[in-house]
Amino acid sequence: MPTRRAAVVGLGLIGGSIARDLASRGVAVSGYDANAREVDGACREGIIDRVLDASFAGVADADLVVIAVPVDAAPTVLARIAPHARSATLITDVGSTKARIVAAAATLGIGDRFIGSHPLAGSHRSGWESSQSGMFADARVYLCPAPNATMASIRAATDLWHELGARPTLIGAAQHDERLAWTSHMPQMISGSLALALSRAGIARDELGPGGLTMTRLAGSSPAMWTAIAAENARAIDDALAAAERELASLRVLLGGGDIEALRHRLSTARAWFDGRQAD
Amino acid sequence: MPTRRAAVVGLGLIGGSIARDLASRGVAVSGYDANAREVDGACREGIIDRVLDASFAGVADADLVVIAVPVDAAPTVLARIAPHARSATLITDVGSTKARIVAAAATLGIGDRFIGSHPLAGSHRSGWESSQSGMFADARVYLCPAPNATMASIRAATDLWHELGARPTLIGAAQHDERLAWTSHMPQMISGSLALALSRAGIARDELGPGGLTMTRLAGSSPAMWTAIAAENARAIDDALAAAERELASLRVLLGGGDIEALRHRLSTARAWFDGRQAD
Repeated sequence: MPTRRAAVVGLGLIGGSIARDLASRGVAVSGYDANAREVDGACREGIIDRVLDASFAGVADADLVVIAVPVDAAPTVLARIAPHARSATLITDVGSTKARIVAAAATLGIGDRFIGSHPLAGSHRSGWESSQSGMFADARVYLCPAPNATMASIRAATDLWHELGARPTLIGAAQHDERLAWTSHMPQMISGSLALALSRAGIARDELGPGGLTMTRLAGSSPAMWTAIAAENARAIDDALAAAERELASLRVLLGGGDIEALRHRLSTARAWFDGRQAD
Repeated sequence: MPTRRAAVVGLGLIGGSIARDLASRGVAVSGYDANAREVDGACREGIIDRVLDASFAGVADADLVVIAVPVDAAPTVLARIAPHARSATLITDVGSTKARIVAAAATLGIGDRFIGSHPLAGSHRSGWESSQSGMFADARVYLCPAPNATMASIRAATDLWHELGARPTLIGAAQHDERLAWTSHMPQMISGSLALALSRAGIARDELGPGGLTMTRLAGSSPAMWTAIAAENARAIDDALAAAERELASLRVLLGGGDIEALRHRLSTARAWFDGRQAD
Protein backbone atom coordinates (compact mmCIF):
# COMPACT_ATOMS: atom_id res chain seq x y z
CA MET A 1 0.00 0.00 0.00
CA PRO A 2 1.63 3.30 -1.05
CA THR A 3 2.29 5.99 1.56
CA ARG A 4 -0.48 8.63 1.65
CA ARG A 5 0.49 10.59 4.75
CA ALA A 6 3.97 10.81 6.29
CA ALA A 7 5.03 12.48 9.53
CA VAL A 8 8.59 13.82 9.51
CA VAL A 9 9.91 14.76 12.94
CA GLY A 10 12.98 16.96 12.59
CA LEU A 11 13.19 19.15 9.48
CA GLY A 12 16.96 19.57 9.22
CA LEU A 13 19.39 18.47 6.51
CA ILE A 14 18.20 14.85 6.35
CA GLY A 15 14.59 15.14 7.58
CA GLY A 16 14.02 18.17 5.37
CA SER A 17 15.41 16.36 2.34
CA ILE A 18 13.19 13.33 2.99
CA ALA A 19 10.15 15.63 3.35
CA ARG A 20 11.00 17.28 0.01
CA ASP A 21 11.30 13.92 -1.78
CA LEU A 22 8.06 12.60 -0.28
CA ALA A 23 6.10 15.78 -1.08
CA SER A 24 7.39 15.76 -4.66
CA ARG A 25 5.97 12.22 -4.98
CA GLY A 26 2.50 13.29 -3.89
CA VAL A 27 2.75 12.20 -0.26
CA ALA A 28 1.05 14.54 2.25
CA VAL A 29 3.67 15.47 4.87
CA SER A 30 3.07 16.52 8.47
CA GLY A 31 6.15 18.11 9.99
CA TYR A 32 7.67 18.92 13.36
CA ASP A 33 10.81 20.72 14.43
CA ALA A 34 11.76 22.20 17.82
CA ASN A 35 13.16 25.16 15.84
CA ALA A 36 10.41 27.42 14.45
CA ARG A 37 12.69 28.61 11.64
CA GLU A 38 12.82 25.11 10.14
CA VAL A 39 9.05 24.72 10.40
CA ASP A 40 8.42 28.12 8.80
CA GLY A 41 10.76 27.25 5.93
CA ALA A 42 9.03 23.93 5.25
CA CYS A 43 5.57 25.58 5.35
CA ARG A 44 6.58 28.53 3.19
CA GLU A 45 7.86 26.17 0.50
CA GLY A 46 4.67 24.11 0.75
CA ILE A 47 6.59 20.92 1.60
CA ILE A 48 4.53 20.23 4.74
CA ASP A 49 0.77 20.80 4.83
CA ARG A 50 0.38 20.26 8.57
CA VAL A 51 2.48 21.25 11.58
CA LEU A 52 2.75 18.77 14.45
CA ASP A 53 2.95 19.90 18.07
CA ALA A 54 5.22 18.34 20.70
CA SER A 55 2.43 15.96 21.83
CA PHE A 56 2.74 14.21 18.46
CA ALA A 57 -0.99 13.36 18.64
CA GLY A 58 -1.04 14.51 15.01
CA VAL A 59 0.87 11.44 13.78
CA ALA A 60 -2.26 9.30 14.31
CA ASP A 61 -3.22 9.20 10.60
CA ALA A 62 0.32 8.84 9.20
CA ASP A 63 1.18 5.50 7.61
CA LEU A 64 4.89 6.47 7.65
CA VAL A 65 6.73 8.10 10.55
CA VAL A 66 10.31 9.34 10.08
CA ILE A 67 12.33 10.54 13.09
CA ALA A 68 15.23 12.79 12.03
CA VAL A 69 16.56 14.32 15.24
CA PRO A 70 20.00 13.98 16.92
CA VAL A 71 20.53 10.42 18.20
CA ASP A 72 20.46 11.47 21.87
CA ALA A 73 16.95 12.92 21.41
CA ALA A 74 15.56 10.15 19.20
CA PRO A 75 14.57 7.57 21.90
CA THR A 76 12.58 10.19 23.85
CA VAL A 77 10.85 11.39 20.69
CA LEU A 78 10.07 7.79 19.73
CA ALA A 79 8.56 7.15 23.17
CA ARG A 80 6.25 10.15 22.77
CA ILE A 81 5.26 9.15 19.25
CA ALA A 82 4.68 5.43 19.90
CA PRO A 83 1.21 5.67 21.58
CA HIS A 84 -0.11 7.83 18.70
CA ALA A 85 1.40 5.98 15.72
CA ARG A 86 -1.59 3.65 15.35
CA SER A 87 -1.85 3.76 11.54
CA ALA A 88 1.87 3.63 10.84
CA THR A 89 2.97 0.56 8.86
CA LEU A 90 6.58 1.80 9.10
CA ILE A 91 8.34 3.82 11.80
CA THR A 92 11.97 4.67 11.09
CA ASP A 93 14.77 7.08 12.01
CA VAL A 94 17.89 8.30 10.19
CA GLY A 95 20.52 8.42 12.95
CA SER A 96 24.19 7.48 12.56
CA THR A 97 23.96 5.04 15.50
CA LYS A 98 21.34 2.29 15.56
CA ALA A 99 21.67 -0.06 18.55
CA ARG A 100 20.04 2.27 21.08
CA ILE A 101 17.07 3.37 18.97
CA VAL A 102 16.32 -0.18 17.79
CA ALA A 103 16.35 -1.39 21.43
CA ALA A 104 14.09 1.51 22.40
CA ALA A 105 11.58 0.55 19.70
CA ALA A 106 11.43 -3.04 20.97
CA THR A 107 10.95 -1.82 24.56
CA LEU A 108 8.13 0.48 23.44
CA GLY A 109 6.28 -2.42 21.83
CA ILE A 110 6.57 -1.06 18.28
CA GLY A 111 9.46 -3.30 17.20
CA ASP A 112 7.24 -5.10 14.72
CA ARG A 113 6.96 -1.87 12.68
CA PHE A 114 10.33 -0.27 13.43
CA ILE A 115 13.22 -0.42 10.96
CA GLY A 116 16.12 1.90 11.77
CA SER A 117 17.57 3.65 8.72
CA HIS A 118 20.93 5.30 8.21
CA PRO A 119 21.37 7.01 4.84
CA LEU A 120 25.02 7.69 3.99
CA ALA A 121 24.21 11.09 2.55
CA GLY A 122 24.38 14.77 3.44
CA SER A 123 27.28 17.07 4.21
CA HIS A 124 28.77 19.07 7.08
CA ARG A 125 25.89 21.55 6.72
CA SER A 126 22.74 21.34 8.81
CA GLY A 127 19.23 22.81 9.01
CA TRP A 128 16.27 23.10 6.67
CA GLU A 129 18.11 25.61 4.46
CA SER A 130 20.66 22.88 3.69
CA SER A 131 18.03 20.27 2.77
CA GLN A 132 17.52 19.43 -0.88
CA SER A 133 15.47 17.10 -3.06
CA GLY A 134 17.24 14.10 -4.53
CA MET A 135 19.77 13.97 -1.69
CA PHE A 136 19.53 10.16 -1.44
CA ALA A 137 20.02 9.36 -5.11
CA ASP A 138 22.40 6.37 -5.28
CA ALA A 139 23.24 6.71 -1.56
CA ARG A 140 23.83 3.60 0.52
CA VAL A 141 21.22 3.28 3.27
CA TYR A 142 21.74 0.83 6.12
CA LEU A 143 18.51 -0.75 7.41
CA CYS A 144 18.51 -2.14 10.96
CA PRO A 145 15.22 -3.96 11.74
CA ALA A 146 14.07 -4.37 15.33
CA PRO A 147 14.43 -8.04 16.46
CA ASN A 148 10.71 -8.69 16.00
CA ALA A 149 10.23 -6.55 12.87
CA THR A 150 7.79 -8.06 10.36
CA MET A 151 8.76 -8.89 6.79
CA ALA A 152 6.07 -6.40 5.73
CA SER A 153 7.79 -3.51 7.56
CA ILE A 154 11.21 -4.53 6.22
CA ARG A 155 9.69 -4.50 2.72
CA ALA A 156 8.10 -1.10 3.41
CA ALA A 157 11.48 0.36 4.47
CA THR A 158 13.22 -1.13 1.43
CA ASP A 159 10.49 0.24 -0.88
CA LEU A 160 10.69 3.70 0.74
CA TRP A 161 14.42 4.07 0.14
CA HIS A 162 14.28 2.56 -3.34
CA GLU A 163 11.57 5.13 -4.11
CA LEU A 164 13.99 7.87 -2.99
CA GLY A 165 16.66 6.45 -5.31
CA ALA A 166 18.86 4.98 -2.57
CA ARG A 167 20.50 1.55 -2.18
CA PRO A 168 19.16 -0.07 1.04
CA THR A 169 21.24 -2.79 2.75
CA LEU A 170 20.15 -4.86 5.75
CA ILE A 171 22.62 -5.03 8.65
CA GLY A 172 22.38 -5.76 12.39
CA ALA A 173 22.30 -2.66 14.60
CA ALA A 174 25.38 -3.64 16.64
CA GLN A 175 27.38 -4.50 13.51
CA HIS A 176 26.26 -1.20 11.94
CA ASP A 177 27.51 0.86 14.88
CA GLU A 178 30.84 -1.00 14.92
CA ARG A 179 31.31 -0.47 11.18
CA LEU A 180 30.30 3.20 11.16
CA ALA A 181 32.77 3.98 13.94
CA TRP A 182 35.45 3.28 11.32
CA THR A 183 33.85 4.51 8.11
CA SER A 184 32.27 7.73 9.42
CA HIS A 185 32.63 8.58 13.12
CA MET A 186 36.42 8.23 13.36
CA PRO A 187 37.09 10.31 10.21
CA GLN A 188 34.75 12.98 11.66
CA MET A 189 36.69 13.12 14.94
CA ILE A 190 40.00 13.30 13.05
CA SER A 191 38.80 16.29 11.04
CA GLY A 192 37.87 17.92 14.35
CA SER A 193 41.30 17.15 15.82
CA LEU A 194 42.97 18.68 12.78
CA ALA A 195 40.84 21.82 13.12
CA LEU A 196 41.69 22.09 16.82
CA ALA A 197 45.43 21.73 16.11
CA LEU A 198 45.30 24.47 13.45
CA SER A 199 43.17 26.68 15.68
CA ARG A 200 45.65 26.30 18.54
CA ALA A 201 48.51 27.11 16.13
CA GLY A 202 46.74 30.35 15.18
CA ILE A 203 46.27 29.33 11.54
CA ALA A 204 42.99 30.48 9.95
CA ARG A 205 41.09 28.18 7.59
CA ASP A 206 41.42 30.61 4.68
CA GLU A 207 45.19 30.09 4.76
CA LEU A 208 44.74 26.44 3.77
CA GLY A 209 45.21 25.02 0.30
CA PRO A 210 42.73 22.63 -1.34
CA GLY A 211 44.03 19.63 0.62
CA GLY A 212 43.85 21.35 3.99
CA LEU A 213 40.36 22.66 3.21
CA THR A 214 39.21 19.14 2.31
CA MET A 215 40.59 17.67 5.52
CA THR A 216 38.91 20.28 7.76
CA ARG A 217 35.48 20.46 6.05
CA LEU A 218 33.85 18.02 8.49
CA ALA A 219 34.90 20.25 11.39
CA GLY A 220 32.04 22.50 10.24
CA SER A 221 29.45 19.84 11.17
CA SER A 222 26.91 20.25 13.96
CA PRO A 223 28.68 19.86 17.35
CA ALA A 224 25.41 18.78 19.02
CA MET A 225 24.73 16.05 16.49
CA TRP A 226 28.27 14.69 16.60
CA THR A 227 28.66 14.91 20.36
CA ALA A 228 25.58 12.69 20.66
CA ILE A 229 26.91 10.18 18.12
CA ALA A 230 30.34 10.10 19.76
CA ALA A 231 28.84 9.59 23.22
CA GLU A 232 26.64 6.74 22.05
CA ASN A 233 29.35 4.90 20.09
CA ALA A 234 32.32 5.96 22.22
CA ARG A 235 34.00 2.57 22.67
CA ALA A 236 33.98 1.62 18.99
CA ILE A 237 35.03 5.13 17.93
CA ASP A 238 37.87 5.04 20.43
CA ASP A 239 39.10 1.73 18.96
CA ALA A 240 39.09 3.24 15.47
CA LEU A 241 40.78 6.45 16.64
CA ALA A 242 43.45 4.36 18.38
CA ALA A 243 44.14 2.57 15.08
CA ALA A 244 44.49 5.88 13.23
CA GLU A 245 46.72 7.18 16.02
CA ARG A 246 48.97 4.12 15.64
CA GLU A 247 49.36 4.74 11.90
CA LEU A 248 50.06 8.43 12.54
CA ALA A 249 52.66 7.59 15.18
CA SER A 250 54.40 5.09 12.90
CA LEU A 251 54.53 7.62 10.05
CA ARG A 252 56.16 10.03 12.52
CA VAL A 253 58.75 7.39 13.41
CA LEU A 254 59.62 7.02 9.71
CA LEU A 255 59.78 10.80 9.28
CA GLY A 256 61.90 11.27 12.39
CA GLY A 257 64.26 8.45 11.43
CA GLY A 258 64.51 9.62 7.84
CA ASP A 259 63.44 6.20 6.62
CA ILE A 260 62.31 7.52 3.24
CA GLU A 261 61.94 4.14 1.50
CA ALA A 262 59.66 2.86 4.26
CA LEU A 263 57.68 6.12 4.10
CA ARG A 264 57.27 5.77 0.33
CA HIS A 265 56.05 2.21 0.87
CA ARG A 266 53.43 3.32 3.42
CA LEU A 267 52.13 6.09 1.16
CA SER A 268 52.03 3.60 -1.74
CA THR A 269 49.99 1.22 0.42
CA ALA A 270 47.57 4.05 1.19
CA ARG A 271 47.34 4.87 -2.53
CA ALA A 272 46.73 1.19 -3.38
CA TRP A 273 43.87 1.13 -0.86
CA PHE A 274 42.47 4.34 -2.40
CA ASP A 275 42.61 2.73 -5.85
CA GLY A 276 40.89 -0.40 -4.54
CA ARG A 277 43.96 -2.48 -5.26
CA GLN A 278 45.43 -5.05 -2.89
CA ALA A 279 47.61 -3.22 -0.40
CA ASP A 280 51.03 -4.88 -0.66
CA MET B 1 58.50 42.68 -21.62
CA PRO B 2 55.82 40.02 -22.24
CA THR B 3 56.84 36.36 -22.34
CA ARG B 4 57.34 35.08 -25.90
CA ARG B 5 58.84 31.64 -25.27
CA ALA B 6 58.48 29.58 -22.10
CA ALA B 7 60.14 26.28 -21.19
CA VAL B 8 58.06 24.04 -18.94
CA VAL B 9 60.01 21.16 -17.42
CA GLY B 10 57.62 18.55 -16.07
CA LEU B 11 54.20 18.24 -17.80
CA GLY B 12 52.14 16.78 -14.95
CA LEU B 13 49.14 18.21 -13.11
CA ILE B 14 50.73 21.61 -12.34
CA GLY B 15 53.30 21.95 -15.14
CA GLY B 16 50.76 20.79 -17.71
CA SER B 17 48.18 23.28 -16.45
CA ILE B 18 50.71 26.14 -16.60
CA ALA B 19 51.65 25.11 -20.17
CA ARG B 20 47.96 25.14 -21.16
CA ASP B 21 47.40 28.63 -19.70
CA LEU B 22 50.57 30.03 -21.33
CA ALA B 23 49.77 28.50 -24.75
CA SER B 24 46.21 29.85 -24.61
CA ARG B 25 47.73 33.33 -24.09
CA GLY B 26 49.88 33.06 -27.22
CA VAL B 27 53.13 32.09 -25.51
CA ALA B 28 55.23 29.52 -27.44
CA VAL B 29 55.91 26.63 -25.05
CA SER B 30 58.84 24.19 -25.12
CA GLY B 31 58.19 21.15 -22.96
CA TYR B 32 60.04 18.33 -21.23
CA ASP B 33 58.92 15.32 -19.25
CA ALA B 34 60.81 12.15 -18.31
CA ASN B 35 57.59 10.29 -19.16
CA ALA B 36 56.96 10.05 -22.93
CA ARG B 37 53.19 9.74 -22.37
CA GLU B 38 53.01 13.24 -20.89
CA VAL B 39 55.09 14.67 -23.77
CA ASP B 40 52.95 12.94 -26.40
CA GLY B 41 49.79 14.28 -24.78
CA ALA B 42 51.08 17.85 -24.73
CA CYS B 43 52.21 17.62 -28.39
CA ARG B 44 49.00 15.96 -29.59
CA GLU B 45 46.95 18.78 -28.06
CA GLY B 46 49.27 21.37 -29.60
CA ILE B 47 50.12 22.89 -26.21
CA ILE B 48 53.88 22.58 -26.73
CA ASP B 49 55.49 23.30 -30.10
CA ARG B 50 58.95 22.02 -29.18
CA VAL B 51 60.18 19.02 -27.15
CA LEU B 52 63.23 19.54 -24.93
CA ASP B 53 65.78 16.77 -24.39
CA ALA B 54 67.45 15.98 -21.05
CA SER B 55 70.41 18.26 -21.88
CA PHE B 56 68.02 21.24 -21.62
CA ALA B 57 70.16 23.05 -24.23
CA GLY B 58 66.80 23.94 -25.80
CA VAL B 59 65.88 26.39 -23.02
CA ALA B 60 68.43 28.88 -24.42
CA ASP B 61 65.84 31.10 -26.12
CA ALA B 62 63.18 30.92 -23.38
CA ASP B 63 62.54 34.10 -21.41
CA LEU B 64 60.57 32.10 -18.83
CA VAL B 65 61.62 28.74 -17.35
CA VAL B 66 59.19 26.79 -15.12
CA ILE B 67 60.37 23.68 -13.27
CA ALA B 68 57.45 21.44 -12.28
CA VAL B 69 59.00 18.18 -11.09
CA PRO B 70 58.95 16.49 -7.64
CA VAL B 71 60.90 18.55 -5.10
CA ASP B 72 63.62 15.91 -4.71
CA ALA B 73 64.40 16.12 -8.45
CA ALA B 74 64.10 19.91 -8.81
CA PRO B 75 67.61 20.98 -7.63
CA THR B 76 69.30 18.56 -10.07
CA VAL B 77 67.07 19.73 -12.94
CA LEU B 78 67.77 23.36 -12.02
CA ALA B 79 71.54 22.67 -12.07
CA ARG B 80 71.30 21.20 -15.57
CA ILE B 81 69.14 24.09 -16.82
CA ALA B 82 71.16 26.96 -15.26
CA PRO B 83 74.03 27.07 -17.81
CA HIS B 84 71.55 27.18 -20.72
CA ALA B 85 69.00 29.66 -19.34
CA ARG B 86 70.81 32.70 -20.77
CA SER B 87 67.74 34.58 -22.04
CA ALA B 88 65.49 33.79 -19.07
CA THR B 89 64.34 36.88 -17.15
CA LEU B 90 62.49 34.58 -14.72
CA ILE B 91 63.29 31.05 -13.55
CA THR B 92 60.76 29.51 -11.16
CA ASP B 93 59.47 26.20 -9.82
CA VAL B 94 56.15 25.08 -8.32
CA GLY B 95 57.20 22.76 -5.48
CA SER B 96 55.50 22.48 -2.09
CA THR B 97 58.83 23.09 -0.29
CA LYS B 98 60.94 26.14 -1.07
CA ALA B 99 64.06 26.46 1.16
CA ARG B 100 66.13 23.86 -0.69
CA ILE B 101 65.37 25.00 -4.26
CA VAL B 102 65.90 28.68 -3.41
CA ALA B 103 69.27 27.85 -1.83
CA ALA B 104 70.20 25.79 -4.90
CA ALA B 105 69.40 28.71 -7.20
CA ALA B 106 71.69 31.02 -5.20
CA THR B 107 74.50 28.44 -5.26
CA LEU B 108 74.10 28.06 -9.03
CA GLY B 109 74.52 31.80 -9.52
CA ILE B 110 71.03 32.37 -10.91
CA GLY B 111 69.53 33.75 -7.68
CA ASP B 112 69.07 37.15 -9.28
CA ARG B 113 66.46 35.65 -11.64
CA PHE B 114 65.03 32.86 -9.45
CA ILE B 115 61.71 33.26 -7.64
CA GLY B 116 60.33 30.04 -6.18
CA SER B 117 56.57 29.66 -6.66
CA HIS B 118 54.08 27.47 -4.82
CA PRO B 119 50.53 27.62 -6.21
CA LEU B 120 47.92 26.29 -3.74
CA ALA B 121 46.02 24.52 -6.49
CA GLY B 122 45.51 21.06 -7.93
CA SER B 123 44.07 17.88 -6.50
CA HIS B 124 45.11 14.37 -5.50
CA ARG B 125 45.36 13.49 -9.20
CA SER B 126 48.59 13.65 -11.16
CA GLY B 127 49.89 13.52 -14.74
CA TRP B 128 49.20 15.44 -17.95
CA GLU B 129 45.72 13.90 -18.26
CA SER B 130 44.79 15.64 -15.00
CA SER B 131 46.08 19.04 -16.10
CA GLN B 132 43.56 21.71 -17.07
CA SER B 133 43.43 25.32 -18.18
CA GLY B 134 42.36 27.89 -15.60
CA MET B 135 43.60 25.75 -12.70
CA PHE B 136 45.14 28.77 -10.94
CA ALA B 137 42.12 31.07 -11.11
CA ASP B 138 41.86 32.78 -7.70
CA ALA B 139 44.47 30.41 -6.19
CA ARG B 140 46.92 31.70 -3.60
CA VAL B 141 50.50 31.44 -4.88
CA TYR B 142 53.42 31.84 -2.49
CA LEU B 143 56.46 33.53 -4.03
CA CYS B 144 59.87 32.92 -2.43
CA PRO B 145 62.59 35.06 -4.02
CA ALA B 146 66.24 34.01 -3.84
CA PRO B 147 68.18 36.30 -1.43
CA ASN B 148 69.71 38.27 -4.29
CA ALA B 149 66.65 38.25 -6.57
CA THR B 150 66.15 41.50 -8.50
CA MET B 151 63.01 43.60 -8.23
CA ALA B 152 62.54 42.99 -11.98
CA SER B 153 62.37 39.21 -11.51
CA ILE B 154 60.01 39.58 -8.51
CA ARG B 155 57.80 41.76 -10.70
CA ALA B 156 58.01 39.21 -13.53
CA ALA B 157 56.88 36.41 -11.18
CA THR B 158 54.04 38.54 -9.80
CA ASP B 159 52.92 39.46 -13.33
CA LEU B 160 53.07 35.82 -14.46
CA TRP B 161 50.74 34.59 -11.72
CA HIS B 162 48.40 37.57 -12.00
CA GLU B 163 48.16 36.77 -15.72
CA LEU B 164 47.11 33.21 -14.79
CA GLY B 165 44.42 34.61 -12.47
CA ALA B 166 46.17 33.74 -9.21
CA ARG B 167 46.84 35.76 -6.03
CA PRO B 168 50.65 35.91 -5.51
CA THR B 169 52.01 36.58 -1.99
CA LEU B 170 55.67 37.13 -1.08
CA ILE B 171 57.00 35.03 1.81
CA GLY B 172 60.43 33.85 2.96
CA ALA B 173 61.31 30.28 1.93
CA ALA B 174 61.92 29.05 5.49
CA GLN B 175 58.69 30.63 6.75
CA HIS B 176 56.83 29.11 3.78
CA ASP B 177 58.04 25.60 4.57
CA GLU B 178 57.17 25.99 8.24
CA ARG B 179 53.67 27.25 7.41
CA LEU B 180 52.93 24.64 4.74
CA ALA B 181 53.85 21.83 7.12
CA TRP B 182 50.68 22.82 9.01
CA THR B 183 48.35 23.93 6.22
CA SER B 184 49.12 21.21 3.68
CA HIS B 185 51.73 18.57 4.51
CA MET B 186 50.32 17.50 7.89
CA PRO B 187 46.73 17.17 6.57
CA GLN B 188 48.13 15.06 3.71
CA MET B 189 49.91 12.70 6.10
CA ILE B 190 46.79 12.41 8.26
CA SER B 191 44.70 11.38 5.25
CA GLY B 192 47.32 8.72 4.55
CA SER B 193 47.23 7.50 8.15
CA LEU B 194 43.45 7.24 7.98
CA ALA B 195 43.67 5.24 4.75
CA LEU B 196 46.27 2.91 6.28
CA ALA B 197 44.09 2.33 9.37
CA LEU B 198 41.06 1.49 7.21
CA SER B 199 43.15 -0.71 4.93
CA ARG B 200 44.51 -2.62 7.94
CA ALA B 201 40.95 -3.03 9.27
CA GLY B 202 39.91 -4.59 5.95
CA ILE B 203 37.45 -1.81 5.11
CA ALA B 204 37.26 -0.87 1.41
CA ARG B 205 36.91 2.77 0.37
CA ASP B 206 33.56 2.14 -1.33
CA GLU B 207 32.08 1.29 2.07
CA LEU B 208 32.65 4.88 3.24
CA GLY B 209 30.02 7.59 3.41
CA PRO B 210 30.58 11.12 2.12
CA GLY B 211 32.59 12.14 5.19
CA GLY B 212 34.91 9.14 5.06
CA LEU B 213 35.42 9.63 1.33
CA THR B 214 36.34 13.28 1.89
CA MET B 215 38.86 12.43 4.59
CA THR B 216 40.63 9.75 2.50
CA ARG B 217 40.73 11.57 -0.85
CA LEU B 218 44.28 12.86 -0.37
CA ALA B 219 45.49 9.29 0.14
CA GLY B 220 45.11 8.98 -3.63
CA SER B 221 47.91 11.48 -4.20
CA SER B 222 51.25 10.61 -5.78
CA PRO B 223 53.39 8.66 -3.24
CA ALA B 224 56.62 9.76 -4.97
CA MET B 225 55.70 13.45 -4.85
CA TRP B 226 54.63 13.35 -1.21
CA THR B 227 57.50 11.18 -0.02
CA ALA B 228 59.87 13.82 -1.39
CA ILE B 229 57.97 16.67 0.29
CA ALA B 230 57.80 14.81 3.60
CA ALA B 231 61.51 14.00 3.51
CA GLU B 232 62.46 17.60 2.80
CA ASN B 233 60.21 19.17 5.44
CA ALA B 234 60.28 16.30 7.94
CA ARG B 235 60.97 18.25 11.13
CA ALA B 236 58.24 20.84 10.62
CA ILE B 237 55.74 18.19 9.48
CA ASP B 238 56.55 16.09 12.53
CA ASP B 239 55.86 19.09 14.79
CA ALA B 240 52.46 19.61 13.13
CA LEU B 241 51.62 15.89 13.24
CA ALA B 242 52.53 15.84 16.94
CA ALA B 243 50.06 18.69 17.54
CA ALA B 244 47.28 16.83 15.69
CA GLU B 245 48.16 13.67 17.63
CA ARG B 246 47.81 15.59 20.93
CA GLU B 247 44.33 16.81 19.94
CA LEU B 248 43.34 13.31 18.86
CA ALA B 249 44.62 11.83 22.12
CA SER B 250 42.75 14.41 24.20
CA LEU B 251 39.50 13.74 22.31
CA ARG B 252 40.03 10.04 23.11
CA VAL B 253 40.44 10.89 26.79
CA LEU B 254 37.10 12.73 26.74
CA LEU B 255 35.43 9.85 24.88
CA GLY B 256 36.89 7.24 27.19
CA GLY B 257 35.95 9.21 30.30
CA GLY B 258 32.47 9.97 29.01
CA ASP B 259 33.06 13.70 29.50
CA ILE B 260 30.33 14.67 27.03
CA GLU B 261 30.17 18.36 27.94
CA ALA B 262 33.92 18.78 27.39
CA LEU B 263 33.63 16.88 24.08
CA ARG B 264 30.81 19.17 22.95
CA HIS B 265 32.98 22.16 23.83
CA ARG B 266 35.92 20.86 21.77
CA LEU B 267 33.73 20.17 18.74
CA SER B 268 32.19 23.64 19.13
CA THR B 269 35.67 25.16 19.20
CA ALA B 270 36.51 23.27 15.98
CA ARG B 271 33.25 24.53 14.41
CA ALA B 272 34.02 28.11 15.51
CA TRP B 273 37.42 27.86 13.83
CA PHE B 274 35.75 26.48 10.68
CA ASP B 275 33.35 29.44 10.68
CA GLY B 276 36.24 31.86 11.14
CA ARG B 277 34.93 32.91 14.55
CA GLN B 278 37.11 33.33 17.62
CA ALA B 279 37.59 29.91 19.18
CA ASP B 280 36.34 30.31 22.77
